[in-house]
Amino acid sequence: MKVVYVSYPPSDAGDVPASADNALGLHDFLAERGHELVTTTDTGEGLDAELSDAEVLITTPFWPVYLDEDRVSKASNLKLVITAGIGSDHTDPETAQQHGITVAEVTGSNVVSVAEHNVLQILALVRNFVPAHTEARDGGWDVARIAAGSHDLEGKTVGIVGLGAIGARTALRLKGFDVRMLYYANHRRSAGEEASLGVRYARLDTLVAESDVICLALPLMEGSQALFGPERLKAMKPGAWLVNTARGAIVDRDALVEALESGHLAGYAGDTWYPQPAPADHPWRSLPEGREAMTIHCSGMTLEAQDKIAEGVREMLEAHLDGRPLADDFLVVDPSAS
Amino acid sequence: MKVVYVSYPPSDAGDVPASADNALGLHDFLAERGHELVTTTDTGEGLDAELSDAEVLITTPFWPVYLDEDRVSKASNLKLVITAGIGSDHTDPETAQQHGITVAEVTGSNVVSVAEHNVLQILALVRNFVPAHTEARDGGWDVARIAAGSHDLEGKTVGIVGLGAIGARTALRLKGFDVRMLYYANHRRSAGEEASLGVRYARLDTLVAESDVICLALPLMEGSQALFGPERLKAMKPGAWLVNTARGAIVDRDALVEALESGHLAGYAGDTWYPQPAPADHPWRSLPEGREAMTIHCSGMTLEAQDKIAEGVREMLEAHLDGRPLADDFLVVDPSAS
Repeated sequence: MKVVYVSYPPSDAGDVPASADNALGLHDFLAERGHELVTTTDTGEGLDAELSDAEVLITTPFWPVYLDEDRVSKASNLKLVITAGIGSDHTDPETAQQHGITVAEVTGSNVVSVAEHNVLQILALVRNFVPAHTEARDGGWDVARIAAGSHDLEGKTVGIVGLGAIGARTALRLKGFDVRMLYYANHRRSAGEEASLGVRYARLDTLVAESDVICLALPLMEGSQALFGPERLKAMKPGAWLVNTARGAIVDRDALVEALESGHLAGYAGDTWYPQPAPADHPWRSLPEGREAMTIHCSGMTLEAQDKIAEGVREMLEAHLDGRPLADDFLVVDPSAS
Repeated sequence: MKVVYVSYPPSDAGDVPASADNALGLHDFLAERGHELVTTTDTGEGLDAELSDAEVLITTPFWPVYLDEDRVSKASNLKLVITAGIGSDHTDPETAQQHGITVAEVTGSNVVSVAEHNVLQILALVRNFVPAHTEARDGGWDVARIAAGSHDLEGKTVGIVGLGAIGARTALRLKGFDVRMLYYANHRRSAGEEASLGVRYARLDTLVAESDVICLALPLMEGSQALFGPERLKAMKPGAWLVNTARGAIVDRDALVEALESGHLAGYAGDTWYPQPAPADHPWRSLPEGREAMTIHCSGMTLEAQDKIAEGVREMLEAHLDGRPLADDFLVVDPSAS
């Protein structure tokens, strides 16, 4: 059996389990079992050649392989696509279903990591961290300039869009900050859950109109593509902040630039981009200074998260090699169920 | 009566209440009552001239007037020194006492602001935010480099040194992150308070040896000057992080640089410096890249904090003008009590 692992290149700065060369420690794991592992950073034609006889593809949201009909039709042996992380939107679910390919992800692996990143990026925006840091490095002491854009989070209204594993953990971490929390989700939580998370349900339009901070914590799917487009961004409160560790494509790229350049929004902190890797000239890389706290997609890539991801991937591979079904909670597309 | 207000200069980037020109709105407040207000950014000889006939000096920790015997002896009319903020270490308490000068600060005004900044700077260090942000701005996508220095806060041991109003609020905000929290303080909290804050008491040496993150939340005083010197920094866990929104002089300047350059500590995030404003060549401005998340002193200067500071200063001035004693909780040095 041939397994292809696609991920980001290693770095001189440090060794990490999920890079293409380390491949989550799967070299030994698969070699011991007599299987072939090919690792690559290539997401283009070189990858197509490797996939032509591969049975399993492992890809990550941080360096994704975009799997569409064209690519899948050339990978006639492909049976399983594993997302080493959470969020499998890079794989077209209908295409996978039609070709009998199982799609799975490591549910739960990095939900704490992303929830922590949400709180970090909220605080960074609201408290004006990036300009304060730049001032420290650049030798200045313009307290008035920093203070003019710096607020307490306390007392603000935070709207969380999507209240799954990540949204709920974000709420639990924000509870101590004495904020008012609204949430919108397809499925409303029970009254008991809402109370324990400290959140109140609102329709999306209400949440958008009332929130000082909006935090996106929903998957990318048909209904969330460009959910924050020109009109919804305009409906946000003047001076509000938007945090997006979910998926870049949930926010309209150019409408966001306009909302920040006009000053309607006070800031945007995104960890996710579209496409990924983001090109060097992606306009979100040059959002107005003092109105952004962007990171490259790393919120779910802490060393602790990587260990959990590695464990989940090995569990799935073992099941697949043994001919056992994958654990239900890992499954995103399950052709055998249809 | 002459009041002198010393603060940072205004900024083109935005208007803030506490800048020297706006003076917390005291222009009208004092003019209506027939008193003189002089505002300045000067903390040198020009200030000495103004202080020669002033009765009240208002200064801030963010742009402090350092008040020693030499300066106070030239200000023979000075009766009250108000810190527009918290932390009056820029005023020598014995000198004030000897000259019959009351020293007061706006207790409670910005404790939430600083507690929020603590959590922000902890997350920024532990999750490797600054390099991830730089990478986003610079056009790169080196996920491995960022991930190699990025950790979850969950499960870590956080040691809080000093558990007053700021330390306790920091603990309450960290509780949701599933960390183990130790604290050291001169006065141990009750068992009930410890439980509600989620903290456990430890001797300072134990806290230093066991903490992955140390957060300083104590005032600068005789016992805390350079409390984190070469030996104590060496006693910290290899790879630990240190956050200091308290006062710069609690940490030995050069020993800290050495601890970061050697790689013994993974990172330092300080909001406070010594002296302030920090000179452009202060070595903490050029700590090793990827091992710092510094800000200029702004943690207690959010717009919300400034409103509370303004309210407290007006309350103190009203009492002083009416010949009433200042509220007890504002008093730092009270010569009338001796």
